[in-house]
Amino acid sequence: MSEGTPLELNNLEMSEKAKPLLAAVIKHIRENVDPMTDEFQRLGEGRSDRWSYAPGQLELLEEAKQKARDAGLWNFFLPNAETGEGLSNLDYAYIAAELGKNPLASETLNCSAPDTGNMEVLERVGTSKQKEQWLKPLLAGEIRSAFAMTEPDVASSDAKNIATSAVLENGEWVINGEKYYISGAGDPRCKIMIVMVKTSPDAEPFRQQSQILVPMDTPGVEVLGPMHVFGHDDAPHGHMHIRFTNVRVPEENILWGEGRGFEISQVRLGPGRIHHCMRSIGQAEKALDLMIDRGLNRVAFGKKIVDLGKNMETISRAKIEIESMRLLVLKAAKAMDVLGNKEARIWVSMIKAKVPEQVCDIIDKAMQVHGATGLSQWSPLSGMYAQQRTLRYADGPDEVHHHVIARNEVREYQESNSRQARAHGREMTKPAGGFVG
Amino acid sequence: MSEGTPLELNNLEMSEKAKPLLAAVIKHIRENVDPMTDEFQRLGEGRSDRWSYAPGQLELLEEAKQKARDAGLWNFFLPNAETGEGLSNLDYAYIAAELGKNPLASETLNCSAPDTGNMEVLERVGTSKQKEQWLKPLLAGEIRSAFAMTEPDVASSDAKNIATSAVLENGEWVINGEKYYISGAGDPRCKIMIVMVKTSPDAEPFRQQSQILVPMDTPGVEVLGPMHVFGHDDAPHGHMHIRFTNVRVPEENILWGEGRGFEISQVRLGPGRIHHCMRSIGQAEKALDLMIDRGLNRVAFGKKIVDLGKNMETISRAKIEIESMRLLVLKAAKAMDVLGNKEARIWVSMIKAKVPEQVCDIIDKAMQVHGATGLSQWSPLSGMYAQQRTLRYADGPDEVHHHVIARNEVREYQESNSRQARAHGREMTKPAGGFVG
Amino acid sequence: MSEGTPLELNNLEMSEKAKPLLAAVIKHIRENVDPMTDEFQRLGEGRSDRWSYAPGQLELLEEAKQKARDAGLWNFFLPNAETGEGLSNLDYAYIAAELGKNPLASETLNCSAPDTGNMEVLERVGTSKQKEQWLKPLLAGEIRSAFAMTEPDVASSDAKNIATSAVLENGEWVINGEKYYISGAGDPRCKIMIVMVKTSPDAEPFRQQSQILVPMDTPGVEVLGPMHVFGHDDAPHGHMHIRFTNVRVPEENILWGEGRGFEISQVRLGPGRIHHCMRSIGQAEKALDLMIDRGLNRVAFGKKIVDLGKNMETISRAKIEIESMRLLVLKAAKAMDVLGNKEARIWVSMIKAKVPEQVCDIIDKAMQVHGATGLSQWSPLSGMYAQQRTLRYADGPDEVHHHVIARNEVREYQESNSRQARAHGREMTKPAGGFVG
Amino acid sequence: MSEGTPLELNNLEMSEKAKPLLAAVIKHIRENVDPMTDEFQRLGEGRSDRWSYAPGQLELLEEAKQKARDAGLWNFFLPNAETGEGLSNLDYAYIAAELGKNPLASETLNCSAPDTGNMEVLERVGTSKQKEQWLKPLLAGEIRSAFAMTEPDVASSDAKNIATSAVLENGEWVINGEKYYISGAGDPRCKIMIVMVKTSPDAEPFRQQSQILVPMDTPGVEVLGPMHVFGHDDAPHGHMHIRFTNVRVPEENILWGEGRGFEISQVRLGPGRIHHCMRSIGQAEKALDLMIDRGLNRVAFGKKIVDLGKNMETISRAKIEIESMRLLVLKAAKAMDVLGNKEARIWVSMIKAKVPEQVCDIIDKAMQVHGATGLSQWSPLSGMYAQQRTLRYADGPDEVHHHVIARNEVREYQESNSRQARAHGREMTKPAGGFVG
Repeated sequence: MSEGTPLELNNLEMSEKAKPLLAAVIKHIRENVDPMTDEFQRLGEGRSDRWSYAPGQLELLEEAKQKARDAGLWNFFLPNAETGEGLSNLDYAYIAAELGKNPLASETLNCSAPDTGNMEVLERVGTSKQKEQWLKPLLAGEIRSAFAMTEPDVASSDAKNIATSAVLENGEWVINGEKYYISGAGDPRCKIMIVMVKTSPDAEPFRQQSQILVPMDTPGVEVLGPMHVFGHDDAPHGHMHIRFTNVRVPEENILWGEGRGFEISQVRLGPGRIHHCMRSIGQAEKALDLMIDRGLNRVAFGKKIVDLGKNMETISRAKIEIESMRLLVLKAAKAMDVLGNKEARIWVSMIKAKVPEQVCDIIDKAMQVHGATGLSQWSPLSGMYAQQRTLRYADGPDEVHHHVIARNEVREYQESNSRQARAHGREMTKPAGGFVG
Repeated sequence: MSEGTPLELNNLEMSEKAKPLLAAVIKHIRENVDPMTDEFQRLGEGRSDRWSYAPGQLELLEEAKQKARDAGLWNFFLPNAETGEGLSNLDYAYIAAELGKNPLASETLNCSAPDTGNMEVLERVGTSKQKEQWLKPLLAGEIRSAFAMTEPDVASSDAKNIATSAVLENGEWVINGEKYYISGAGDPRCKIMIVMVKTSPDAEPFRQQSQILVPMDTPGVEVLGPMHVFGHDDAPHGHMHIRFTNVRVPEENILWGEGRGFEISQVRLGPGRIHHCMRSIGQAEKALDLMIDRGLNRVAFGKKIVDLGKNMETISRAKIEIESMRLLVLKAAKAMDVLGNKEARIWVSMIKAKVPEQVCDIIDKAMQVHGATGLSQWSPLSGMYAQQRTLRYADGPDEVHHHVIARNEVREYQESNSRQARAHGREMTKPAGGFVG
Repeated sequence: MSEGTPLELNNLEMSEKAKPLLAAVIKHIRENVDPMTDEFQRLGEGRSDRWSYAPGQLELLEEAKQKARDAGLWNFFLPNAETGEGLSNLDYAYIAAELGKNPLASETLNCSAPDTGNMEVLERVGTSKQKEQWLKPLLAGEIRSAFAMTEPDVASSDAKNIATSAVLENGEWVINGEKYYISGAGDPRCKIMIVMVKTSPDAEPFRQQSQILVPMDTPGVEVLGPMHVFGHDDAPHGHMHIRFTNVRVPEENILWGEGRGFEISQVRLGPGRIHHCMRSIGQAEKALDLMIDRGLNRVAFGKKIVDLGKNMETISRAKIEIESMRLLVLKAAKAMDVLGNKEARIWVSMIKAKVPEQVCDIIDKAMQVHGATGLSQWSPLSGMYAQQRTLRYADGPDEVHHHVIARNEVREYQESNSRQARAHGREMTKPAGGFVG
Repeated sequence: MSEGTPLELNNLEMSEKAKPLLAAVIKHIRENVDPMTDEFQRLGEGRSDRWSYAPGQLELLEEAKQKARDAGLWNFFLPNAETGEGLSNLDYAYIAAELGKNPLASETLNCSAPDTGNMEVLERVGTSKQKEQWLKPLLAGEIRSAFAMTEPDVASSDAKNIATSAVLENGEWVINGEKYYISGAGDPRCKIMIVMVKTSPDAEPFRQQSQILVPMDTPGVEVLGPMHVFGHDDAPHGHMHIRFTNVRVPEENILWGEGRGFEISQVRLGPGRIHHCMRSIGQAEKALDLMIDRGLNRVAFGKKIVDLGKNMETISRAKIEIESMRLLVLKAAKAMDVLGNKEARIWVSMIKAKVPEQVCDIIDKAMQVHGATGLSQWSPLSGMYAQQRTLRYADGPDEVHHHVIARNEVREYQESNSRQARAHGREMTKPAGGFVG
């Protein structure tokens, strides 16, 4: 066992109080969400105005939301919240895997990204006025929100590069710059953005950024269009390209104070990454099911496809990786619960670096078993692939996480005499005497 | 050296006569095609009628086609043709790699899939009437065409599964069934399809299929819509889903005779796979260039991205694989020239199984270096990926080619005493005597 | 979460009672084993009689064994045993990871393979006479033992192929055949083998085999020599090649009764695979430490090797996989504890198929960072690699485990309506209406 | 086609004059070498003095050498040599693949490493006295030689690190230091070493090293023992660890002059890497044959192993890679012939970085098909693996070659406007106007 990993982190069992919730969520998805999903998607197809909902779509969604609310399945993404609805990260992780299997499930429970992260931030660091204005309707599922961080003109894998500026003038922040891949900003219900900006270019590197609340309808906010992922625009949710031209918001719209942008990111990123990764595992399970289903239902060269070539091994390897990833994500969630976001960050980086890459691979193999249909709009697989592929950048590209993990591992090695000792025969030193051979 | 591989197959040099053509093609692309490509694409964006060309688009294309024709760069995909324009597969392969780097280049030379394959088939097995009616305008670049083989309801990796039926009634073939992923059938200029049908269900398995010419405007031909590839519909070219309901064409529209569908496939598939794979290599080169360009022009953590982590090794591995693949494709082309399609089929299966999978991987790594932009419509990479990904199914999925290759290798091993002998120490037999240790 | 996986299986925490044992084991290895390991190995080098211990070697070992016994660290591999020393599989798994880091550690606690499996079998199914004669001295660490299963002349991946015959004649089993890779049979202290034989060729396939106790000194047992692994003979432990020629043992030497050979295998294989895999993880941790140590202590091209190219990412990936594997092995151990060997077998197959392959890869990368030294006798890495490589066959090759896992997964999919339902949008059915595009 | 790659490099056909030589070599191996190889190896087994030849071994070898000499199959590794025996690198490459299939074949033709490199260096830069004394008996096959470059105490991947010093005193070089992995220095017939030393520590980095001839029997040369490779000591050839303590040789023993050590390396390394890589391909072919042979001759679960699971795809992938590698090595050889060692170095780095890694993988998969036997002394596979694994360090580790390749590729990209232009749509620049969606 790795030093520094208390053994109690390995109790990955769901709490007794959450077990009935998980069962209720599964039942809710099966009874209230799965049955209307096809219709919801069909309504949205082929519209000339892609950036709105078709008549009937929101009604279906609201109906399912109401059922969830009635069943008490609402807002439980927020651990240790004053408001009391929250589950621990570990308990929530179990639920998130189920949410990953249906594209609408999260929203029916008011647990969709990026709202969850935004709500968590507001709950943790918002003023009471900010909470009243934005957290309340978000918790109620009345509006939606976005988080504007990534920029097209710099390598935002290094968040210090972020260049959108906010300058204080006469009690207002004046914001100029460009953001892209702002997920959810295409939704007509999206009313508020949290925007990462550079407020203090002369401060030390990690104190230059701040996060500011910017209502979508503020003058100067211009949605230039949707960014595509492969060919998907994910309308009407969307991943929008937004230009800020002399956008003015009140000074009080800053969150937690000037220069605390990175600190706030720590608040949001840990849980968000757990949610993402656990939903990804739900996606991988769905891909595996689809792979088996197809493999059993098509025949080529006189055999079921599942029995041809390496397909059985492909299924096995997918299964093994799904179970490995699930445990690792649960452990990261537990570490968040026990150690806090900061101490748990290596575990979070581990899942972020492993899960989306691996899930992409599983989905890709499921596509291969499907033939051309697997790439088409007749199968959910290509959309799932596109989504997982973006997760290899979102909240930091794989490479950054790998670097964080390795740096920590090297540091732990250096600091720990005990670990050095554990590497018996560690050297490598040439034998003192001659050889005998 | 593998038995059965004559040494002369390793002269992969372009012929003297073709070298100036390659230079001319490169010049043509640079001067006539690259400069208008952005405008062509911009004209096509955001149209409400995606299945037509915007005003001006075809003019740009025709202008470039005329320049190519004037320069004698036309129709040289057809080896050993009566018409005399053709290049050997080897010579053409060099040119195809260049064509792979610009999405319009092939068409300006009248060398686009699926027209090339259709023209080759018509030239080889068409009647003079069929040639007059369809080959002539195709060779002139006046119309376009499609090839309808894959079906949605069966595993068409096993082509014997193909179920669309054609029954002879009163001197007409009556066709019923469904095809999908019919590339190019969305183009308003597409006038003719070659359709693979089952005409002789009682014949032996490889004699049941035939290929029939079906004009696009024949009553009963219904284009249901486009198949997407990762969200791309590739309009107006398109990969169409087509239903045939009591489609009637004259008996003489059959190609080469009843039950010869598989034989015809052998004619078209070899060269087509060479073209595809060599264009894929052009795509890989372009992806590598884009990767380097991005790596040199973005800075993170105080370094150019190209100098971070494993990126240099990624570039090296891409380069090595590109050169390996290029030589293998050239060898397959040479084998086609020297041995003929049938004998060369193992070489063709080798490139088909290796190249698209590998090129997908190179493009994926280029996307990763680009961050989220790499997945978006701002970069050609995601479209390139989608295209290469479909090639892992088109003309047979990777798995079928691997099986063909392995079966041949096993058979060669069994047949060749000399090869068995070459495996010195091949066994494995326990030593006759005891051990000494 | 996968159906059929009760949530309580995810409590992977060590029991309170075992935690001090783990600490004591770590202390024991550090204080009593690590310090004498170099000397032990040095004494064994360059001997002309490789199949004995050098003067002083066994004294070092016995001294460490006595210290372990004094500290109560003895025989705790046996869960739920009458004798009471045993730990649960889960608790033992934690300890096994530590044992994997020093090549002598297991033996000092009387927890070495194959003795552990043999003792478990004797404890579970042995007669009191068998226990008195063989289990007692084994539990006391006075003798060692071997398990003879694999045969050179058949594919023993399919255990039904096993051909060594035992025929009952006059109250004696007469054994004829050949076994190889009989680990530990080279040790002069090895006194007893459990031999898998075919006793009942006419029974149904899984009832033909039996296991029989054969003392090493029985006439007709001929140790032909050691099998090498790469170039290692692992003397004096050894992986021996043994011929049985009319070997006669009393009828009562059969274990549990005729035809129960496969049943007994189920008893031994589960725990043994847990032990192997968890020691493998200890090896992987050691390899990672060695990789970091080397990377920090060599300089090339002006940088520490650890900072060159992809090395940091290699470290990160190794770390992530180690933690993933650890959790999966703990889960398999827990499944054994909670569900029993039979129900847990899929989890055991998962770790057996994943861990050794992955650990080989980690060790290989550690070797690469070491340069040529990594392959040599100056580093433990090549020996570690050889050992892990054999685990990809031992107790069933990877491929067999993958097949078992996939078959189970497919069966679960077929049986579970609920799982089918969970794959929303699972099909793939073409839309009922036309396209809109 | 990559800029800077003249098309004529793609004529990879063997020359007409060499074709009969290749046939003769194949015949020679089959008739004169294969038949005696088993006996040669059996004679060498189990000897107490591992660092000599057993009676009869050298006789077998000399007999085969004489037959080769009689057939004119001798010393043809040396391109463009005064002595006239030489083949081009391309022609030799074809032969080397055959030599890779039998462990004794190279030596019977006097074409073994490291003699070939040493002879090439002596031929190119030796004085007539040096040639008389050392080249002549080497060319005659009367003595053998070694090349001492790698050092245990520094990262010799960066050759500038080499620390063994040579100081000129009274007309003699006085050498002190340590070398290891000196292949062939264990052979009793090895009489001469070329030693890389630091003679000029104050010169610029690439002018500090020299190469000096040191007879094996010079006082102060102490062979400390053999370095193992995965447990193999490769006796009596050996990879020796050698200490130099005040070793004195005449000033004239320097090759080509002080400070030219790196220049000389360029002479030897190119061809040597071609030979290694092409023999590696021979090894891969042999591994593939062994894999098929085993797969056809064992049955498990009612099928031939070759027909189980992914084995057919494994065979196909091995075949594809073998043919890809073969062509790439032939191209590197051709580049050496046409462009010279310096210009061809990128091609040589490409094969060096790709081939041994890939061949290791093929051999590993062949081992997996063999079960435990594949790792043992009954099969040549584990020894082949060990040998190929060392090639991933020899003459520069993979990582150094990847860096060289990538740096060159980046530089070419930067220098070539034409290449930038070729990446149509290369950017990535956000569209000037707004989106349309």
